Amino acid sequence: MHIRIIIPTTAADHVEPDWYDDLGRPGTRLTHVNIERGPRSIESELDEALAVASMLEQVAVAATEDVDAIVIDCMGDPGLAAARELVSLPVVGPAQASMQLAASLAHSFTILTVLDTLGPMFDQLAHRSGLAGKLRSTRSVQIPVLELRNEPEHLMQALIEQSLLAIEQDDAHAIIFGCTGMKGYATRLARELELRGHPRIPVIDPIRAAIALAETLVALGLTHSGQTYPTPPAKEYAGYELSFNPG
Amino acid sequence: MHIRIIIPTTAADHVEPDWYDDLGRPGTRLTHVNIERGPRSIESELDEALAVASMLEQVAVAATEDVDAIVIDCMGDPGLAAARELVSLPVVGPAQASMQLAASLAHSFTILTVLDTLGPMFDQLAHRSGLAGKLRSTRSVQIPVLELRNEPEHLMQALIEQSLLAIEQDDAHAIIFGCTGMKGYATRLARELELRGHPRIPVIDPIRAAIALAETLVALGLTHSGQTYPTPPAKEYAGYELSFNPG
Amino acid sequence: MHIRIIIPTTAADHVEPDWYDDLGRPGTRLTHVNIERGPRSIESELDEALAVASMLEQVAVAATEDVDAIVIDCMGDPGLAAARELVSLPVVGPAQASMQLAASLAHSFTILTVLDTLGPMFDQLAHRSGLAGKLRSTRSVQIPVLELRNEPEHLMQALIEQSLLAIEQDDAHAIIFGCTGMKGYATRLARELELRGHPRIPVIDPIRAAIALAETLVALGLTHSGQTYPTPPAKEYAGYELSFNPG
Amino acid sequence: MHIRIIIPTTAADHVEPDWYDDLGRPGTRLTHVNIERGPRSIESELDEALAVASMLEQVAVAATEDVDAIVIDCMGDPGLAAARELVSLPVVGPAQASMQLAASLAHSFTILTVLDTLGPMFDQLAHRSGLAGKLRSTRSVQIPVLELRNEPEHLMQALIEQSLLAIEQDDAHAIIFGCTGMKGYATRLARELELRGHPRIPVIDPIRAAIALAETLVALGLTHSGQTYPTPPAKEYAGYELSFNPG
Amino acid sequence: MHIRIIIPTTAADHVEPDWYDDLGRPGTRLTHVNIERGPRSIESELDEALAVASMLEQVAVAATEDVDAIVIDCMGDPGLAAARELVSLPVVGPAQASMQLAASLAHSFTILTVLDTLGPMFDQLAHRSGLAGKLRSTRSVQIPVLELRNEPEHLMQALIEQSLLAIEQDDAHAIIFGCTGMKGYATRLARELELRGHPRIPVIDPIRAAIALAETLVALGLTHSGQTYPTPPAKEYAGYELSFNPG
Amino acid sequence: MHIRIIIPTTAADHVEPDWYDDLGRPGTRLTHVNIERGPRSIESELDEALAVASMLEQVAVAATEDVDAIVIDCMGDPGLAAARELVSLPVVGPAQASMQLAASLAHSFTILTVLDTLGPMFDQLAHRSGLAGKLRSTRSVQIPVLELRNEPEHLMQALIEQSLLAIEQDDAHAIIFGCTGMKGYATRLARELELRGHPRIPVIDPIRAAIALAETLVALGLTHSGQTYPTPPAKEYAGYELSFNPG
Repeated sequence: MHIRIIIPTTAADHVEPDWYDDLGRPGTRLTHVNIERGPRSIESELDEALAVASMLEQVAVAATEDVDAIVIDCMGDPGLAAARELVSLPVVGPAQASMQLAASLAHSFTILTVLDTLGPMFDQLAHRSGLAGKLRSTRSVQIPVLELRNEPEHLMQALIEQSLLAIEQDDAHAIIFGCTGMKGYATRLARELELRGHPRIPVIDPIRAAIALAETLVALGLTHSGQTYPTPPAKEYAGYELSFNPG
Repeated sequence: MHIRIIIPTTAADHVEPDWYDDLGRPGTRLTHVNIERGPRSIESELDEALAVASMLEQVAVAATEDVDAIVIDCMGDPGLAAARELVSLPVVGPAQASMQLAASLAHSFTILTVLDTLGPMFDQLAHRSGLAGKLRSTRSVQIPVLELRNEPEHLMQALIEQSLLAIEQDDAHAIIFGCTGMKGYATRLARELELRGHPRIPVIDPIRAAIALAETLVALGLTHSGQTYPTPPAKEYAGYELSFNPG
Repeated sequence: MHIRIIIPTTAADHVEPDWYDDLGRPGTRLTHVNIERGPRSIESELDEALAVASMLEQVAVAATEDVDAIVIDCMGDPGLAAARELVSLPVVGPAQASMQLAASLAHSFTILTVLDTLGPMFDQLAHRSGLAGKLRSTRSVQIPVLELRNEPEHLMQALIEQSLLAIEQDDAHAIIFGCTGMKGYATRLARELELRGHPRIPVIDPIRAAIALAETLVALGLTHSGQTYPTPPAKEYAGYELSFNPG
Repeated sequence: MHIRIIIPTTAADHVEPDWYDDLGRPGTRLTHVNIERGPRSIESELDEALAVASMLEQVAVAATEDVDAIVIDCMGDPGLAAARELVSLPVVGPAQASMQLAASLAHSFTILTVLDTLGPMFDQLAHRSGLAGKLRSTRSVQIPVLELRNEPEHLMQALIEQSLLAIEQDDAHAIIFGCTGMKGYATRLARELELRGHPRIPVIDPIRAAIALAETLVALGLTHSGQTYPTPPAKEYAGYELSFNPG
Repeated sequence: MHIRIIIPTTAADHVEPDWYDDLGRPGTRLTHVNIERGPRSIESELDEALAVASMLEQVAVAATEDVDAIVIDCMGDPGLAAARELVSLPVVGPAQASMQLAASLAHSFTILTVLDTLGPMFDQLAHRSGLAGKLRSTRSVQIPVLELRNEPEHLMQALIEQSLLAIEQDDAHAIIFGCTGMKGYATRLARELELRGHPRIPVIDPIRAAIALAETLVALGLTHSGQTYPTPPAKEYAGYELSFNPG
Repeated sequence: MHIRIIIPTTAADHVEPDWYDDLGRPGTRLTHVNIERGPRSIESELDEALAVASMLEQVAVAATEDVDAIVIDCMGDPGLAAARELVSLPVVGPAQASMQLAASLAHSFTILTVLDTLGPMFDQLAHRSGLAGKLRSTRSVQIPVLELRNEPEHLMQALIEQSLLAIEQDDAHAIIFGCTGMKGYATRLARELELRGHPRIPVIDPIRAAIALAETLVALGLTHSGQTYPTPPAKEYAGYELSFNPG
């Protein structure tokens, strides 16, 4: 099984070659690519809007290769609907995948993200997934995406602090990381929450959730609905060289 | 008052110089511009995704001119949130403007659009406007955008037929045109519905609704919320030459 | 364009002749009238119930004059549905108009009113407008309607304080004044909020919102739906001398 | 136990002296009164608006007598909130009482009323009761209130026909009569539905439901909430002679 | 009228012979029975799951006796839907009955229960009753069911404290006891809340609400819907000796 | 990885030894067990209520063996919450798993089940999963569970016919089988729908969805939330020999 991860930022220098190595199951091959035009990180609707065209070009490329499924590596699920219209192989976004996974395990969840300006965007994503009623709050560690790795212990403490507020003030029963760049902190955060009196809090690492959903879809032979994501009428796109997958 | 209309398609040949002439109030100056890169018409999420970057460039251009408000001339409100993050002058989308106007006049509404594949997109737009509970159905005349003007009487009959079904089967109390290209049919449609036993059905022409909302915002000195649409952190966008309005 | 403002209280002595002078656009003529029977101010459902009959008489009167639209000058929108059944010219209420306007500009809003007992009433009004999901809270300055003008600076400070709580605790992205008597404080409140770190918070003055919506409806030739507000069967009303507009 | 029924119409000639005789439990005394000013029947929001002031005067009168609870005999619950602000003894409306009763027995319900223009009004009432999610549809027999008794068998057949449509097309699991004037048809309708393959369909007679709720409230010593229905500030009502119950 | 109360716990020693004596109206005969297999108290979904089979056996027994209605004496309404499928005489649960009663009197309510782990269960029950929008919060006194009677004054103080938080922080307009074992505290709690500035807060004792609803159903000749609770296909239940009521 | 499938019926004779053989991924070991006391099939809330106690005994047994996750093989998810309180290893129900999977792929879904009496039960399950807004309808083939295998072609035709109605009348974008006994028909149904003009309709086989979710949970080291499913207080269960997993 071959899953292509598309990173909708130009910060290829931030992705070590082995960044995704431990995320798939045995037998899953993960390859990744950054986009060529767009922002170095995604922290706003504007950033997303300027990433999607180049991301869709990579989706079209992947569809011509021996790829079984595509994962968009950004918690805003930028361009997910457009990508699903463009190709018929499964395309998965971490926001949708992690919210569905959290809702499978808990009555409610909080999204714990980088900046506190992203609340309305996650509200829209929760609604799109049908799970607006489960989203208790969006909280943030107030660290920009590209600085997430600078002080790991500072990030860890912020995650603990905000998770405790989410559980104790917002009635969250699970935590979803609101940025795929937070990869690697979930297990320890769950343990720290248990030490503070909250056992068995699911902490969802969204890039793992997305890869797992992609693996499941390939294993079960499923893809996105032709009613929700119909193949668009063929037309000319001035300035783009997209080739359509006829669906 | 100067309102800039941005048409997020490349089909400039479809826009006569006087297309918008009768749409503003006395004292309102309307100018328009097409985008340079993207689709010739918008009929899918893919089309929108490939229109937004070029549309945002035009938003940035307008903000440097003597423009008081911007209207995006497409019923999908493509890039509305990103445009509002980018500039602090009012930016208005026809979908949101026409749904709010319909909800001011009626208990419920149906969107009557070009193709029957656009239902999920309008569901998302209704939710974003907070009005999902008022949207009874999305119906279509099954005529592509660029063919809307080919057979006006055929379009008129399809509008009447679908409006009657919306009222009688879906419990719609108002009709919103789901494409700004349907401009000019609202008054006659309302009259035809009255002749068929349904007096006072508001028929909303979305481009008129959007321009009227832009006029109101300028007159009242209001613009979009800095909490919902915060100015994004400044960053590098490879391949784009956007200049930010510092908000 | 001639808009009749109906004030559903008997406190005509509280309305200076020039009170509405600066609220319309160039070319709009505003006239106003108080009701004859009912409360001196509206601060409860009881007050509304005792204002509506006399208000409807004024609606019927206006419909016989050269009036293009009617605005009810009370944030409870008392008798709005009945008035719309009674006449076919546009009738606008400030609650509905200002909630729709706020939702056009922001993800959420708080209503900032006179007394803290009005929460359930505003919940009902938000639902009637289809916007219950956008209303974060109702807050109050705890000053009765007829004392609003006694200490302007005290009112201003209370508005600032409650707006900050609405933004910081209730996640409100816009503020709507919950009493049309608060006219004149919106611009300064927005500026004060910007000074305190919250730029571009839309502050909606409901009487301005209502007049602007009335102007838009007249300009676009729209009125309320005959499906939502059907002309009632003609009948005898003992004790009233209403004459119906045949719709 | 003494329950006062207030009929918010002037059609006293339509109420036989023994009309309510069989509706209370042993030990319940039922007295009734019509209003003095207002419509002869209630079939619109306008009719309600012109009934409430006179209805509230009767509420104030009842509160000075040896009355334990008040029932408003109209399925629109006109003035219910205002009446509850005015007095502290229980005031019950048939719409709210019958929707709560239906929701106690069934997953969903349809309201079967006189005219098909009342749908939006019942939507509002269902929302006010918190039960909008249970209301599947509003259907009508298309017979004006004052003609309901003219042809009993015609009414019965219309009730059967619309109930079958409600069950089979709208997924209604219970039926609520949408007019208190339909009193006396519930038992036979349930039997007719059973004969047509739908056993145990609760058919709710709203005036019975309202009286039963009033009896329960008196028996349990409960009345409406002072938070939802606070006693209003005392004030002058020009043209009315209401005396307040100090709550 | 004969109402059978089924207590779905094995703690028969906790139920004095006169425990229910003052709860019915004149003319109502109340008999009660504990289940034989299951938990001594119900404080979790597990406890409920292990109580229902034995509870249903008692329902089947009651249906063969001269019983007019059944009340399940537990605030989790365990097995209510199954019991209603099993028999056609009315079966009432205190959660549903008390939420409907509270919603008849107040805009919102809080459930005040024994342990703070029961929140998700009450959310489900509120949804099942259609009243999720009215439930503001679940709060607890943190006293296990079987210790509720040990220190009455401690319980009273905890009820006052949590009710004040419910009203002042959660915007609750009524209080429902979240355990039928709290019987007897409602009247004093309401009085204490009035002394602290909150007059007319309905405090609902759920076992009284359930018995009153059962009395109303018998008086009105109503029972649960055959559409919502259809008689199941007859089948073999290994290990059980249920005899069906043919419905 | 070892997954224990618990079949909450006594119809062990209906489960061939190789029934589950092709459902897991390479490396997954699937074992199964029927309950000892309860119904032969589950077609009502009564059937579920009589299955749960024996099902929970099998959950407790599994937790003492080398089992990594438990799947309940019934589309009603009977006892899921109780089982999750009882043990800390993952427990998965097909209803929740398949609704989350469908919502990941489509804007809406219909559940296609055995009997048309199960609608309210699936409404509750959809709400519990947070996905009530995505469930368009419940439809049935009107074949009892234990007869599903008698006439495979008749079942196939009924599935096609009802799926077409779901897509064309109910606006369903995906189909979920509402009975795990329908295993094996999904691929062909999707193909038949494509032949009839509806390409890429996800058809979800719920037992596969449940096993895939269990595999994902084990692979990611996740289990259900301790906030939603807290370990209950230890207590005596008369008539049961459950041993608790201390969680």
